[in-house]
Amino acid sequence: MAAEVFNERGYDATSMEDLSAAAGISKSSFYHHVSGKEALLRGALERAVDGLFGVLSESPAQRGSPLARLRYIVRRQVEVLATELPFVTLLLRLRGNTETERWALERRRVFDQEITAIVREAMDTGEIDDGLEPARAARLLSGTVNSLIDWYRPDRVPLPELVADVERFVFEGLRSTR
Amino acid sequence: MAAEVFNERGYDATSMEDLSAAAGISKSSFYHHVSGKEALLRGALERAVDGLFGVLSESPAQRGSPLARLRYIVRRQVEVLATELPFVTLLLRLRGNTETERWALERRRVFDQEITAIVREAMDTGEIDDGLEPARAARLLSGTVNSLIDWYRPDRVPLPELVADVERFVFEGLRSTR
Repeated sequence: MAAEVFNERGYDATSMEDLSAAAGISKSSFYHHVSGKEALLRGALERAVDGLFGVLSESPAQRGSPLARLRYIVRRQVEVLATELPFVTLLLRLRGNTETERWALERRRVFDQEITAIVREAMDTGEIDDGLEPARAARLLSGTVNSLIDWYRPDRVPLPELVADVERFVFEGLRSTR
Repeated sequence: MAAEVFNERGYDATSMEDLSAAAGISKSSFYHHVSGKEALLRGALERAVDGLFGVLSESPAQRGSPLARLRYIVRRQVEVLATELPFVTLLLRLRGNTETERWALERRRVFDQEITAIVREAMDTGEIDDGLEPARAARLLSGTVNSLIDWYRPDRVPLPELVADVERFVFEGLRSTR
């Protein structure tokens, strides 16, 4: 719930008062339970980071051809984004003004590097178009998946349909090949 | 420059003091020139909105096959994002807490509707994969292009190369067709 408040107001503009009001308890008893704003931020960000890194350690993300692994990761990434929406939204909108934010940005960088490494492998095997610069291809891939936080509403689109459309867009592009 | 300060701190957390400091003048003479924080926001957002809608009214965006128009719009959209980076960044990170923000969000919605209409036309002519839901295809397209604000650094990638890679990714996808 802290994640929702941070997303709505921005982390810097959120006060402990806003957070205790959202939790529906008094500011003083809120302080009794929570050491501070940054601890709440850390908890919310850890949930997003753990969700995303969890995908990379799943066995289909580690075995098979680079393209098959990448397709699996994209599908699972969409699922994590959709099911952990407020937490991932918070992660993706960080500004990096605090220690905790910088920690999370560093984890995002590591995640992106892992994706870039698999993209590179898939270019080496000829499964992915090597006319694109690998790091840029990886960023466009992540950018596409991450854009979900701006428009996905869980009640409107069934998750399997969303997953299928994102995978199709990323790997086949918009142009019809009929 | 106000756009940069808003992007860094978040609009809600930015004070007139922050803005006058960034402008390098005293708060009192700053107030003499600027009617308020929201007027600065409005100016910055208008610049981004005008840039994007300007593309839609250019003649290659209005003539030719739907796919050719869409390809042109994507290329020009990347150029506008790259050259007006702080203004478009501000536009894309709005939360909608003020009148001005809601105005800008409404303009974004209209822009997205125009793109969706062209995507639909290109599906009707068979140029674009109609296995995707049109509004979702349009959102994935915009999401990909808009993700540039998170990773593009003007000094590192020549603009024509960026434009070509984004166009290739959006329309051909990552998968190698060799």
